[in-house]
Amino acid sequence: MDSYLIQVNGPGDHAPLLDVHLKTNGNSMSLGKVKGRKPRWAVRASEMSKKTFNPVRAIVDSMKVEPNPKKAMISLSLGDPTVFGNLPTNDEVTRAVKEVLDSGRYNGYAPSVGYQSCREAVAAYYNCPEAPLEAQDIILTSGCSQAIELALAVLANPGQNILVPRPGFSLYKTLALSMGIEVKLYNLLPEKSWEIDLKHLESLVDEKTACLIVNNPSNPCGSVFSKSHLQKILAVASRQCIPILADEIYGDMVFADCKYEPIATLSTNVPILSCGGLAKRWLVPGWRMGWILIHDRRDIFGNEIRDGLLRLSQRILGPCTIVQGALERILHQTPPEFYHNTLSILKSNADLCYAALSAIPGLQPVRPAGAMYLMVEIEMEHFPEFENDVEFTERLISEQSVFCLPATSLALLSSVNVLH
Amino acid sequence: MDSYLIQVNGPGDHAPLLDVHLKTNGNSMSLGKVKGRKPRWAVRASEMSKKTFNPVRAIVDSMKVEPNPKKAMISLSLGDPTVFGNLPTNDEVTRAVKEVLDSGRYNGYAPSVGYQSCREAVAAYYNCPEAPLEAQDIILTSGCSQAIELALAVLANPGQNILVPRPGFSLYKTLALSMGIEVKLYNLLPEKSWEIDLKHLESLVDEKTACLIVNNPSNPCGSVFSKSHLQKILAVASRQCIPILADEIYGDMVFADCKYEPIATLSTNVPILSCGGLAKRWLVPGWRMGWILIHDRRDIFGNEIRDGLLRLSQRILGPCTIVQGALERILHQTPPEFYHNTLSILKSNADLCYAALSAIPGLQPVRPAGAMYLMVEIEMEHFPEFENDVEFTERLISEQSVFCLPATSLALLSSVNVLH
Ligand SMILES: Cc1ncc(COP(=O)(O)O)c(C=O)c1O
Ligand SMILES: Cc1ncc(COP(=O)(O)O)c(C=O)c1O
Repeated sequence: MDSYLIQVNGPGDHAPLLDVHLKTNGNSMSLGKVKGRKPRWAVRASEMSKKTFNPVRAIVDSMKVEPNPKKAMISLSLGDPTVFGNLPTNDEVTRAVKEVLDSGRYNGYAPSVGYQSCREAVAAYYNCPEAPLEAQDIILTSGCSQAIELALAVLANPGQNILVPRPGFSLYKTLALSMGIEVKLYNLLPEKSWEIDLKHLESLVDEKTACLIVNNPSNPCGSVFSKSHLQKILAVASRQCIPILADEIYGDMVFADCKYEPIATLSTNVPILSCGGLAKRWLVPGWRMGWILIHDRRDIFGNEIRDGLLRLSQRILGPCTIVQGALERILHQTPPEFYHNTLSILKSNADLCYAALSAIPGLQPVRPAGAMYLMVEIEMEHFPEFENDVEFTERLISEQSVFCLPATSLALLSSVNVLH
Repeated sequence: MDSYLIQVNGPGDHAPLLDVHLKTNGNSMSLGKVKGRKPRWAVRASEMSKKTFNPVRAIVDSMKVEPNPKKAMISLSLGDPTVFGNLPTNDEVTRAVKEVLDSGRYNGYAPSVGYQSCREAVAAYYNCPEAPLEAQDIILTSGCSQAIELALAVLANPGQNILVPRPGFSLYKTLALSMGIEVKLYNLLPEKSWEIDLKHLESLVDEKTACLIVNNPSNPCGSVFSKSHLQKILAVASRQCIPILADEIYGDMVFADCKYEPIATLSTNVPILSCGGLAKRWLVPGWRMGWILIHDRRDIFGNEIRDGLLRLSQRILGPCTIVQGALERILHQTPPEFYHNTLSILKSNADLCYAALSAIPGLQPVRPAGAMYLMVEIEMEHFPEFENDVEFTERLISEQSVFCLPATSLALLSSVNVLH
């Protein structure tokens, strides 16, 4: 996840006393704010902005180490497939947008949930007999991030809780905490290829549980759930009557020996908001094109949730129209070789990483089955000089200029991307 | 403002009883939610999604009239300059984006506040001696709508209030109410070319006032504040120590006989977040490119507000990168004739509307000085068959298929765009 620090002018703390303004206009002495006191400047950032907090940023900021100036930085911590230049998007994808620009027909406002024709294109792409979709089931968003934001915002009230994977993608927590929604972390089991600890998951459910986030394929684990495991997850959701927010941004990004099943294709009753987008599979994360697929065959979400999503989408009016206009062609005409090629690069990088890391005593990589990440267990007894994974990854930076993310929640793991 | 209704499947109310799931797994009997009751499906949309509400949509939805099938619809209610085809963007603008696509260099994640080089381009464009700007003062957003959303989200807490023009752009209220922020409407005076009723404004200020929204040039009034009026507004803000959220999306879109002054150029102390974007002046609203300019020469916002904006921008990660990449060229190389041409079309349409409406007994248009709108006073005594402006505009639709927005807040006015 990308972050950026804004520099600021001058001293951090302003001096409010300098800015006291005496009233000179007699007329206004009796007005509003002034009753009984002199107004003074005291502009404070809202609680919500203070609660909006990126945990990865916090770890990284607290690491206070410099890369080795003699070695070029190798950043294996960001989920941006474009940074190394080895994974360009397909020409068909850029050509589609250029034609849209030439047409001049996609410069105006789209409906806030997206153009009807583009929603149809997404529906047609993901539609299948087990999980039928029509245009009305699609909401186009500014990236998968906004899809997750809208889905959480419509499903949960402040004071409720959501169930979130550990280890997991940091945005869930960032968004939830900023909205006053509690996060309950359920464990993924490294020894079972990062399957969900279903007992632990179910033990966390209570009256205030608003939804279950299932991220498959997984960032940062690189794992892909089997059909039978997904069915067990659905059984928990069904038993407990908890809707699912499925983060399927890495959908179809799985290696040949393994199959990706959209969770909605395995359920007949659990209502599901599936979030996705162009970012990863089409290798254009900057374009900010995402979507929500509404799966609600038992009409449990009903008008409520659909109307809520519509209203929320009107706040900032959907994704860039020139990408929307290109969506049908991008989804339906990108040549299959492109996807295969991306996956074979990812797979061979993953194999390389896995082999190299396995050869190091004390490091135990977990073989990924998809997405763009690989987790490494650090057997701390082999590394007595380090307290924990944070110190280990710090030294990787200062000594080798290699940047991985410590998965501090598990205290013994580190996440590495396999893009390079 | 654009809206869209999602169709829904089947009956609106779901039947939760159908979805009760009995526990069959003995192990889970003691878990979470189930203690003492059977879970059942009851998914409700969040309070926040229910409070997110577009007042224009509500007026329009309640109007329940059909256009005259014998006449083509003429929609004068949307602020979308692209719908009639007479105001295309400039070739330079689309060419800039096509080159960015060809370069392949803008497909990855940008920093969440925007690329440094693009923030520099915006800073350079708006920088002036009276209100200097650097890259660090710019936050790029998904349209001016998101700029306003972030500005409100960082400045106000639930329970605080903001001061909003009446008549005014509906999004302010939509966003504020969804965040639990109270809206206090201050009057604009039609008889004074829509200047702010400053006494009324100041009387609304209280301890809980978080910011003052100033929209200049105005949607829907088409008015442009004089330098001296802006100075008086600043005097109120300064006296009351209230920061300003300046919505200047129509900045520079003023007719030749009148001058637009960015409010920040007239202030030395009041901290100002100025919101703008490409939508109107460059005629590409669908591209969703907006920005916040942070003016804080007395360091009153300080790190607080800057950091808050940064954190909030990380929620959905900024605007589309291919438009960001084109920004420098769009701002600095669009030929001046393009802007002149747009304004001369708007001006001649405004004159035409003004002349035609003035000739109708009982209608009093207020001559616009900029933006894309014109307000018309309806002298109701001339139209005894109508109760109010809503009925009047309804009849315009059913009889003439002409769609204007009733400015019901004033009960006697209607807003007409001058794009056609
Ligand atoms: C699991 C997961 N979900 C969502 C996102 C956000 O996707 P987008 O860039 O489309 O907002 C990411 C990006 O890294 C991700 O890894
Ligand atoms: C006054 C005003 N502010 C903001 C906006 C929103 O601009 P954008 O389309 O860039 O979100 C509009 C659009 O109509 C407007 O009229």
